[in-house]
Amino acid sequence: MKKILIINGPNLNLLGKREKSVYGEQKFEDYLEALKKLFPETNISYFQSNIEGELIDALQNADGQYHGVVLNAGGYTHTSVSIGDAVRAISVPVIEVHISNVYSREAFRHISYITPAASGLIAGFGLDSYRLAIESLMIS
Amino acid sequence: MKKILIINGPNLNLLGKREKSVYGEQKFEDYLEALKKLFPETNISYFQSNIEGELIDALQNADGQYHGVVLNAGGYTHTSVSIGDAVRAISVPVIEVHISNVYSREAFRHISYITPAASGLIAGFGLDSYRLAIESLMIS
Amino acid sequence: MKKILIINGPNLNLLGKREKSVYGEQKFEDYLEALKKLFPETNISYFQSNIEGELIDALQNADGQYHGVVLNAGGYTHTSVSIGDAVRAISVPVIEVHISNVYSREAFRHISYITPAASGLIAGFGLDSYRLAIESLMIS
Amino acid sequence: MKKILIINGPNLNLLGKREKSVYGEQKFEDYLEALKKLFPETNISYFQSNIEGELIDALQNADGQYHGVVLNAGGYTHTSVSIGDAVRAISVPVIEVHISNVYSREAFRHISYITPAASGLIAGFGLDSYRLAIESLMIS
Amino acid sequence: MKKILIINGPNLNLLGKREKSVYGEQKFEDYLEALKKLFPETNISYFQSNIEGELIDALQNADGQYHGVVLNAGGYTHTSVSIGDAVRAISVPVIEVHISNVYSREAFRHISYITPAASGLIAGFGLDSYRLAIESLMIS
Amino acid sequence: MKKILIINGPNLNLLGKREKSVYGEQKFEDYLEALKKLFPETNISYFQSNIEGELIDALQNADGQYHGVVLNAGGYTHTSVSIGDAVRAISVPVIEVHISNVYSREAFRHISYITPAASGLIAGFGLDSYRLAIESLMIS
Amino acid sequence: MKKILIINGPNLNLLGKREKSVYGEQKFEDYLEALKKLFPETNISYFQSNIEGELIDALQNADGQYHGVVLNAGGYTHTSVSIGDAVRAISVPVIEVHISNVYSREAFRHISYITPAASGLIAGFGLDSYRLAIESLMIS
Amino acid sequence: MKKILIINGPNLNLLGKREKSVYGEQKFEDYLEALKKLFPETNISYFQSNIEGELIDALQNADGQYHGVVLNAGGYTHTSVSIGDAVRAISVPVIEVHISNVYSREAFRHISYITPAASGLIAGFGLDSYRLAIESLMIS
Amino acid sequence: MKKILIINGPNLNLLGKREKSVYGEQKFEDYLEALKKLFPETNISYFQSNIEGELIDALQNADGQYHGVVLNAGGYTHTSVSIGDAVRAISVPVIEVHISNVYSREAFRHISYITPAASGLIAGFGLDSYRLAIESLMIS
Amino acid sequence: MKKILIINGPNLNLLGKREKSVYGEQKFEDYLEALKKLFPETNISYFQSNIEGELIDALQNADGQYHGVVLNAGGYTHTSVSIGDAVRAISVPVIEVHISNVYSREAFRHISYITPAASGLIAGFGLDSYRLAIESLMIS
Amino acid sequence: MKKILIINGPNLNLLGKREKSVYGEQKFEDYLEALKKLFPETNISYFQSNIEGELIDALQNADGQYHGVVLNAGGYTHTSVSIGDAVRAISVPVIEVHISNVYSREAFRHISYITPAASGLIAGFGLDSYRLAIESLMIS
Amino acid sequence: MKKILIINGPNLNLLGKREKSVYGEQKFEDYLEALKKLFPETNISYFQSNIEGELIDALQNADGQYHGVVLNAGGYTHTSVSIGDAVRAISVPVIEVHISNVYSREAFRHISYITPAASGLIAGFGLDSYRLAIESLMIS
Repeated sequence: MKKILIINGPNLNLLGKREKSVYGEQKFEDYLEALKKLFPETNISYFQSNIEGELIDALQNADGQYHGVVLNAGGYTHTSVSIGDAVRAISVPVIEVHISNVYSREAFRHISYITPAASGLIAGFGLDSYRLAIESLMIS
Repeated sequence: MKKILIINGPNLNLLGKREKSVYGEQKFEDYLEALKKLFPETNISYFQSNIEGELIDALQNADGQYHGVVLNAGGYTHTSVSIGDAVRAISVPVIEVHISNVYSREAFRHISYITPAASGLIAGFGLDSYRLAIESLMIS
Repeated sequence: MKKILIINGPNLNLLGKREKSVYGEQKFEDYLEALKKLFPETNISYFQSNIEGELIDALQNADGQYHGVVLNAGGYTHTSVSIGDAVRAISVPVIEVHISNVYSREAFRHISYITPAASGLIAGFGLDSYRLAIESLMIS
Repeated sequence: MKKILIINGPNLNLLGKREKSVYGEQKFEDYLEALKKLFPETNISYFQSNIEGELIDALQNADGQYHGVVLNAGGYTHTSVSIGDAVRAISVPVIEVHISNVYSREAFRHISYITPAASGLIAGFGLDSYRLAIESLMIS
Repeated sequence: MKKILIINGPNLNLLGKREKSVYGEQKFEDYLEALKKLFPETNISYFQSNIEGELIDALQNADGQYHGVVLNAGGYTHTSVSIGDAVRAISVPVIEVHISNVYSREAFRHISYITPAASGLIAGFGLDSYRLAIESLMIS
Repeated sequence: MKKILIINGPNLNLLGKREKSVYGEQKFEDYLEALKKLFPETNISYFQSNIEGELIDALQNADGQYHGVVLNAGGYTHTSVSIGDAVRAISVPVIEVHISNVYSREAFRHISYITPAASGLIAGFGLDSYRLAIESLMIS
Repeated sequence: MKKILIINGPNLNLLGKREKSVYGEQKFEDYLEALKKLFPETNISYFQSNIEGELIDALQNADGQYHGVVLNAGGYTHTSVSIGDAVRAISVPVIEVHISNVYSREAFRHISYITPAASGLIAGFGLDSYRLAIESLMIS
Repeated sequence: MKKILIINGPNLNLLGKREKSVYGEQKFEDYLEALKKLFPETNISYFQSNIEGELIDALQNADGQYHGVVLNAGGYTHTSVSIGDAVRAISVPVIEVHISNVYSREAFRHISYITPAASGLIAGFGLDSYRLAIESLMIS
Repeated sequence: MKKILIINGPNLNLLGKREKSVYGEQKFEDYLEALKKLFPETNISYFQSNIEGELIDALQNADGQYHGVVLNAGGYTHTSVSIGDAVRAISVPVIEVHISNVYSREAFRHISYITPAASGLIAGFGLDSYRLAIESLMIS
Repeated sequence: MKKILIINGPNLNLLGKREKSVYGEQKFEDYLEALKKLFPETNISYFQSNIEGELIDALQNADGQYHGVVLNAGGYTHTSVSIGDAVRAISVPVIEVHISNVYSREAFRHISYITPAASGLIAGFGLDSYRLAIESLMIS
Repeated sequence: MKKILIINGPNLNLLGKREKSVYGEQKFEDYLEALKKLFPETNISYFQSNIEGELIDALQNADGQYHGVVLNAGGYTHTSVSIGDAVRAISVPVIEVHISNVYSREAFRHISYITPAASGLIAGFGLDSYRLAIESLMIS
Repeated sequence: MKKILIINGPNLNLLGKREKSVYGEQKFEDYLEALKKLFPETNISYFQSNIEGELIDALQNADGQYHGVVLNAGGYTHTSVSIGDAVRAISVPVIEVHISNVYSREAFRHISYITPAASGLIAGFGLDSYRLAIESLMIS
């Protein structure tokens, strides 16, 4: 049974709670339940923090504990050299996901310090970006 | 039965034939056969051209004929305003795919004129990027 | 009787057919008929292609055959050094036209490789940009 | 009877008087007379100033008084956020004109703060740029 | 009794008259009356001009005549080295104000030649930016 | 009775304790007491942290609990996309304040990821920037 | 007898009156008297304005009336395409002068739109920059 | 007997026909004849197209068929990531040639997407650039 | 007896544990023991955190408690204005160290917000960078 | 009697010998003789070298030996941090001169590492730039 | 008999002596002997220096003495305005050569101050770049 | 006994002689004597030149003759590709040193062409930077 960790970064705890026109109607906790049912043969864990360093801790701790990590670093995607370094430092594959198409938003969101270090990138499919990322870890 | 069109751009006809260390061992035609078996309920068509304008033609013609397009525009990704315009002009969803992680290659490959117009982006999973793109069109 | 060639570039075959809120309700073919009636003393030909090189061919072939060319290179306006070179290489006057005000759209549309080579520039008048361009060739 | 105001910016009072190889042999006042004869059904007024703020005043005062404005802001085209704001603030259509092809001159002349606010742009036809601009206001 | 001068730059004479969705419903003259009532112990003067040099004149003349200046240089904010120099040259404190949040508008509005020279900056509070600026001069 | 939260970011706990020539003689705690007396009809809370994610937490928690937030994000102002996202995500108005005129310091302090998301900006008035920010929340 | 016109731009009317540590102790009017005595065989006129367009007027009017112009455009040096165009449009030699070494001040003062059009450049000699400029017109 | 393919890109079919002051008096076809005589022991083929994708096709097809390719991609040199990719994808050596010294022309001609992929670069020798390129393939 | 604090930033807890080809074979804890033996007359403390704000806390708390700080801020070096501010705010000398030569790695690692605030910089000596930093604090 | 040293940099030994259309007809040695006659009360020495370090040597040696230095560093003006440092290191005033108006030539000639360190700048007067520089040293 | 001078710049005296994997196995002196045998009808001289100014001297002295110069300026290629000026100043044709393909190395090696001044450019053929350069001088 | 060579670049011969507030009170020759006493077991040689090429010569000659080089290239640090190439070409370790913290000075001093080639970097410790560099060569 494959173990997968989903890591969500800053403000993603607000999904389904605020700015619904942007972030959709669904809470991530509810989506997570649906996701677990879609992948019954997979053990999916979840971690969220608004603190950059705690995301780094989570990535470091995932090494050797999980078969894959699905990482949505939120706003830190565009500013955090250190999260990128953490992805590089661990040997578990990390899939970068984004709910929206970040490349059609402000210019500062076009830079990602995580993409060059990640195993793969999935963006723009709404919450289904997470599902596709897990899919990708299943078939590799 | 969903109809899906895969469009491959310049030099992607060389997959499995040259620079195998970069592009892998598998010819796209062989991969396509495997893909069709994975999605028996889907009608998958394929088009490849090295000519930018023929890719635009193919995108325009796909409108109203397919439920989704999987587009790997190869080197035109980074230079073609016009392919981006074609994606914008049609109403069929277009998923941008890349075999390799283009963001860990030369700086001029970090710019995409297609991403802001595409429905979603999948990159870095090798040929499985295509499979995930079809997956995404199935669940949407 | 003056002979004038209108050359339209990529995606302009979609005028009046798609994205009507952007490109207007009128097909270019219909507009062309109206245009011919407005200039009964002029012989107006029309060429459209999505292929950059065919636009270059058309420009080269216009030399010595027409009194003027009206060129809307669409998305190639912003990326094609070679179409600009073709305009420079021929001695027939080339008027650059744009339907919309390209300078109020994305930043990459503010660069034109054709303007420095063109005899004149007309932009932002909708399809009437073509009419004004022909006007300009009549009075020069 | 349509009322149209032509506004000329800095140094355009020198037309036909200095640097004839650049600005041509014809004084603007003489050209204006010819223009009035070409459009007998139109009431054409003319204003010139070297002072940026007086151009803003003229634009503001044109609102509700004219059916259209033809604006050649000269060197202020490339530096004046405030004239661009004035164009935006009024509801009368403003057509930006340039005598020469500014895009084949120095790089600092490739930026226009007026184009994004203007209804249309006509450049490179010599003094006939003004005639085409009035033409455009007639047909709209 | 403190004497304060409000200086408004280009197009701010249009407040409440045009583009009401942008500049609000209230004329500045009416707001000024309300402002004077809010600060009965203060002598508030007002000057507006569309001419950059007249704003410089007004700043120079304010020196030694007023206890403080509230300056909204409008579009000149982003282009006028000389107004910035005038602020630097006088010893009366100058508070820079903006009605809207200029940093959420076009990129060329993110540059201010006045801010480095000003005593303080207040932006984004609508016409109340002026009130807060006077407030700030009262308490310092 | 209006409830207002003041959030101070990194190194602002040093106010009045170190670099007095830069940050002034007064401790923020002392200033806070004075502030509360100036606004007896207001309930002012205070939070300070050097940790970016805790500032995000504080902003999220303020939503629905306060009538307004006064935010001095210190050095994170210039680097934190995520704090800007948090400001955008909540519906309580956030006023950005700075003690010094950040635009007359190093170039990297001229960029703010918070200003485009904030309701208003007040900078350069020393500790009185906070007082003016509360003032602004009172009158809106 | 040679006729020379000195044109001073914005804020240079403050010389010797404000910011003496920067602009020196001497009023320009007093310096002008001394200058006239140094060049008894020369007819030196003087014009100052804070208004960009009036400086353009003065340059245009100098053509054919003076043997040379000494121009210190102050802050407009760095922003005025139009004054540069005026210098280019007239045939009288224009010497650009600056009192201070503008290249050791802020970066935006390193750009001059006047230098490429001027006959010569003299900077950094205090008020003696004017004397050297007249010297240069005497010997050419 | 060595087989060599010369590939010429857009507008190079105009050599000796138009803009003779720029491109010289000689048609490429005539030069080719002379070239063949200079290298009697070599089999020289020739291909020209204005279409980017056909140049890519020609490069791909040359692989395994020729001992070397001499490529003048004309204006595509400066814009075509895809031609560069094709050069990289094939194992036959490709020599990049230019007739003129492209580095003494417009700035956009200083960028080449082909040089980093080519075996060698020869520029500025007029049509003799081709002769030297063949020379280079003979001695390697 | 001199008291020295070593502060290590994000991912430096992985030294000797992961990516040994990059970070070396030795755990920092082991190196620390060796270091203490090399400087028996010095009291060396150690702090590591992946959290930016905790590094700021540690720097603030070091003030007055230590004779010197050796700081390797890891990935935060290149993004943290706030750590730089903390270094500036305290009076204890801070020596910036890097294990590898950061200037021969990616471009985003060439920027340091800490160097302008630090007393000295030592980079590229492997773990011996720390030893040299302590050396430097001993001799100053 | 004032002692002045003229230092000429690379290629200035070619004055009057090559590219006369650019550098004029007069050899510097001949001009120097004329210059000495114009300033009989001055002791003018001359040094020329094509070697950057020898120019630095000459500047260092001038300190304490001359009352002023006239420096035309030629092409090193635009690239030599070290000559700028030498100017800064000595206490004798250094006047930077250029024969031509370097700001109307290529963009790389608009940067000077010497200007920020020099006492004054004189450019564009042909060889008379030297005469004016000596003039300036006489009157200071 | 044609006289040709080869000028090699900094570090090229190390060819065949150090970094053989980069610079090849062959000493330039040995290659020079082979070259002389290949061109028995040519008089080939050789000069090498690590000093920028001595390369300028050599270029100046070559004027009128040689029929052509083959110049590999090594690292000075990318930084020396003055060597470029020397090439421009002399009338003997100068062919720029590089052993490696400098455009596939670091970004700072993509700039050449010599190319715009040189008669031709040959790069990437190893030591044969010199042979081709002499070839080019033979046929011109 | 280890042999070490210290190489000092332009203007460093002025240490202790000029600009003492910047470069300190101590002559390098005196410091060198103290240094030799600190490392009695080491043979320390010294070379200084203002000429870039002589520094390259010295580096080349050090290869095989010394166990390490301590290099302060002064102003050439920021402009010399060729010195960087020399460091790369030799196999003896080169430690880059700077007396002051170059990163807190002008922007053009933040670029170093030597750092990417050097074994290590030590900056900001005054003359002790040399001592630490020798230290580093002792322990490696």
